[in-house]
Amino acid sequence: MLCCPIRRRNLCNMYQRLTRNLWLISIVLTVTVFSLSTLFSKYSISSQTCLTKSNDKSDVQTNNRNVSSFKPTIFIGGMPRSGTTLMRAILDSHPLIRCGEETRVIPRILSMRAAWKKSPVEWNRLIAGGMTEAILDSAVRAFVYEILLHHSLSADILCDKDPFVLKYATYVASIFPNSKFLLLIRDARAVIHSVMTRRVTITGFSQTDYRQNLKLWNKGIESMFQQCQQIGHNRCMMVYYEQLVLQPKKSIENILKFLDVPWVDSVLHHEELIGKKISLSKTEHSSDQVIKPINLEALTKWFGHVPSDVREELDVLAPMLKRLGYDTKSDTPSYGTADPLVLANMEKMKENADFWKQKVKAYARQLPNNTNLFQKIS
Amino acid sequence: MLCCPIRRRNLCNMYQRLTRNLWLISIVLTVTVFSLSTLFSKYSISSQTCLTKSNDKSDVQTNNRNVSSFKPTIFIGGMPRSGTTLMRAILDSHPLIRCGEETRVIPRILSMRAAWKKSPVEWNRLIAGGMTEAILDSAVRAFVYEILLHHSLSADILCDKDPFVLKYATYVASIFPNSKFLLLIRDARAVIHSVMTRRVTITGFSQTDYRQNLKLWNKGIESMFQQCQQIGHNRCMMVYYEQLVLQPKKSIENILKFLDVPWVDSVLHHEELIGKKISLSKTEHSSDQVIKPINLEALTKWFGHVPSDVREELDVLAPMLKRLGYDTKSDTPSYGTADPLVLANMEKMKENADFWKQKVKAYARQLPNNTNLFQKIS
Repeated sequence: MLCCPIRRRNLCNMYQRLTRNLWLISIVLTVTVFSLSTLFSKYSISSQTCLTKSNDKSDVQTNNRNVSSFKPTIFIGGMPRSGTTLMRAILDSHPLIRCGEETRVIPRILSMRAAWKKSPVEWNRLIAGGMTEAILDSAVRAFVYEILLHHSLSADILCDKDPFVLKYATYVASIFPNSKFLLLIRDARAVIHSVMTRRVTITGFSQTDYRQNLKLWNKGIESMFQQCQQIGHNRCMMVYYEQLVLQPKKSIENILKFLDVPWVDSVLHHEELIGKKISLSKTEHSSDQVIKPINLEALTKWFGHVPSDVREELDVLAPMLKRLGYDTKSDTPSYGTADPLVLANMEKMKENADFWKQKVKAYARQLPNNTNLFQKIS
Repeated sequence: MLCCPIRRRNLCNMYQRLTRNLWLISIVLTVTVFSLSTLFSKYSISSQTCLTKSNDKSDVQTNNRNVSSFKPTIFIGGMPRSGTTLMRAILDSHPLIRCGEETRVIPRILSMRAAWKKSPVEWNRLIAGGMTEAILDSAVRAFVYEILLHHSLSADILCDKDPFVLKYATYVASIFPNSKFLLLIRDARAVIHSVMTRRVTITGFSQTDYRQNLKLWNKGIESMFQQCQQIGHNRCMMVYYEQLVLQPKKSIENILKFLDVPWVDSVLHHEELIGKKISLSKTEHSSDQVIKPINLEALTKWFGHVPSDVREELDVLAPMLKRLGYDTKSDTPSYGTADPLVLANMEKMKENADFWKQKVKAYARQLPNNTNLFQKIS
């Protein structure tokens, strides 16, 4: 503060007041300008992102620039009855991820697009009509992403579990650069036993013919395996069902590491979230199985059910089985030792047998009684 | 300005300077705050739109709010061989509109979605799996819009010409609120004569059976007609092929009025833009016809070709023909008088017959010689 001689005190006071006011105004001005420009710059970025998003033409021309703003996505697949529902229930128990029920429509649009591409006449017509691969990709991606986004609610990481999506894995990997794939692998003998005893209708699979089913399994898994390898181990991981149920902690740790997702203990107890974060479909075959804690019930059910003539031809009918590391010489192969956690789960399930029986009933598959119609669609 | 006694002049000057500075600072402050808040509010609106756009979940819940930002879209359809290509070539000659070749994939995805909806078992499975009608609509719309946007280049008004899209007109109208429909109507006898003589493969149509073809035409047009009526005359207009070629100026004036698009003279001479703004597909059947100026060549070609027993049953086989106003009693019905412009076009084409013959050859349909494959797809 300035020193004022007494005789000019009045004027001097006035001057001091004004100086103070001036400082005050300067401070207010600085703060106002600073906060407004901060807000302005923040909204300016959002707005830029928005403009990029709506400029769809340049998107196609510049190799889908806006795809980089897509949420990360996990695709879970494999041959049916290979633990894909268990896998997605485990991931569903992670707070960052939401897989949900099978969408059924994602593999359909992928199969439709594959059919166009496969037919030289149809492809020729599309190209002659001004269509390009980039335009089609862009439309297929828009469809799939729209389904995933709405089906996955507001999860940070989107996730799709539709077993046959892995048939188109390399294509999906190309249109979704920010995606990873989990290919579930399971002993074909167990897969086929499950298809036949649980009467699962899958196009081409027979309810009685082991040979036909082994060949079909081999064809399917071979193609998925090749595509997974082509995508590379950074983006596609093979998950053995047997290891997942025998050693859940170790397996899930590896899976979450591969997915770059932090560990949370809830993934070891997905059964506690059924009906809460995890919704199950009453028309899917595995719902009444994945309501239980991770267990070994389904591991060896097939033992003793493979006809002896089929057993002898196993390596010819389904060479992929051996290639994937399964012991095709034994009729009761050992898949490894079980984690104490799983053994404890088994014990608890035994103690509360009635409780689990009721629960299984509640989640048993329900479909209208029109078998003809049903078979036509499957 | 304040008046200062002489003896205090120095102090008084100081006071005046400060007051002036204070005013200056206040003005600067006001202007700064005002301009920053204007900018802020401007970007805040963009950003709000953007947030709405990316918050797709709420979008589905609030009946597709962001769809209002879609470009206006015209859907041209009808039974094949009814002038849909001519119609789109005419609209393509308007600077604001771009239709282009048939996309072929838009009717496919619409048919796929219709099949899901039609099957109670499949629909039940989708709903049980957490899918909703709104999610599916959103995905189908995303696919269709992506195709239209990229296929229509940077046109102000998007346009799709895929004849069978009109089979799903009410659905398309519901997912694209900012769309209008043109349903092309043509005498069934001419349609069928064209299918049979130009060997057009359309699922269900025969190369020899007039009766079967008339029934099929009737079924198709009846459904499209009903849907067009359901959408209402504000959004769906029936365009009679015969009137379009006989009275192009009057017809196109009405169509552009219906579409809320300003008149331009180029629409009367689409042939001048072929190969420039208008691209034709070498795999579409009408390309070698629409390269010519609007003419009457195809109007009466069918005269004398309908078997007499079919003629007698016409109103039973295809009651829609009479309902749509066609004279089913006459074998050589009159469709009305021709505009002098069309008569002049006919004269010019006669004078330069060789020139047009060569041009037709250049645009003749080309497809690989694999008829089996071709028939499977058609």
